[in-house]
Amino acid sequence: MKLLENYIQTYGEAINKDVLKVDAFINHQIDPKLMMELAKDIQNHFQNKTITKIVTIETSGIAPSLFLGYLLNVPVVYLKKNPSKITTDECYQTLVHSFTKNKDYTVTCSKKYLHQDDKVLFIDDFMANGEACIGAIKIIEEAQAELCGIAIIIEKAFQSGRKKVEELGYSVYSLARIQSLDNGKITFISE
Amino acid sequence: MKLLENYIQTYGEAINKDVLKVDAFINHQIDPKLMMELAKDIQNHFQNKTITKIVTIETSGIAPSLFLGYLLNVPVVYLKKNPSKITTDECYQTLVHSFTKNKDYTVTCSKKYLHQDDKVLFIDDFMANGEACIGAIKIIEEAQAELCGIAIIIEKAFQSGRKKVEELGYSVYSLARIQSLDNGKITFISE
Repeated sequence: MKLLENYIQTYGEAINKDVLKVDAFINHQIDPKLMMELAKDIQNHFQNKTITKIVTIETSGIAPSLFLGYLLNVPVVYLKKNPSKITTDECYQTLVHSFTKNKDYTVTCSKKYLHQDDKVLFIDDFMANGEACIGAIKIIEEAQAELCGIAIIIEKAFQSGRKKVEELGYSVYSLARIQSLDNGKITFISE
Repeated sequence: MKLLENYIQTYGEAINKDVLKVDAFINHQIDPKLMMELAKDIQNHFQNKTITKIVTIETSGIAPSLFLGYLLNVPVVYLKKNPSKITTDECYQTLVHSFTKNKDYTVTCSKKYLHQDDKVLFIDDFMANGEACIGAIKIIEEAQAELCGIAIIIEKAFQSGRKKVEELGYSVYSLARIQSLDNGKITFISE
């Protein structure tokens, strides 16, 4: 998606060969108009699918998910990284490893909000090694919901996430695919 | 706001006399259409103010903030509870105590995204003892930005948040004001 690539080139920052910082419009400050455009692109890509629920992971997947939920008129469920102590619900849980933060964290979803009859579109801001996405897949499969599609805002295509997710039988739609972040230069895989 | 009160009565749950659970449409599953209606109400309330930035705290303040940011065409900045280790930015930081989780946490904002010339509307999902809001006020004041308004989705009016914030010289606009959660019954302060 050209608009997103322009944002990444203009406001993004290749911190090192593995880390792209997009704090200026996704991960700390959010540009709502851009998020709506991302949502429209995803809506268009999955226009032939029936979607009844958007699933994402807190925090940065929430913004594009919300606008897509608005356009499709379906609820958005975000998997929690820091489950509230006030919940007494039965939950689906899985462990996810974050390479960026170098730690494991538990991802949780109340059984109330994910069902067998849900047709789910999963959205996340980044895909690197695919750990978060695979965690979400496990939870969606455990709930016996149907995973109809996976949309990623920024894919680090030089890492193994897509391959691992495809091996599980799912395809990945990415709005921007980073080929390399070497030497502070952001290079995309052309569409 | 009647629509919100209806949602709270229908889908909310008074866990005990202090805790209202709204996981079904705000804190875990999000209803995007409702969030847009909340944003329109806030926009209407502050229509005479010039707003250049929405500030909120991750995670549950993000949804209404985003739609308001979309309507006003201004960026949304969310204060971070779990600052990323990849940031090298200079930050504003303050300590906030959570009574619900019974722990202190650090709230952080990069100096890049909050400036002296910003006219800020602060939004949060809940106000109880006002700790989170006061933390945000500290950060906004430290950045020398102008705090033009505070909008709270659900105020636990039987707790001290509003009083404390008013003592700092700010007024609070709440979309729903809970009078009591006693005996599992949710009672509102009438408008």
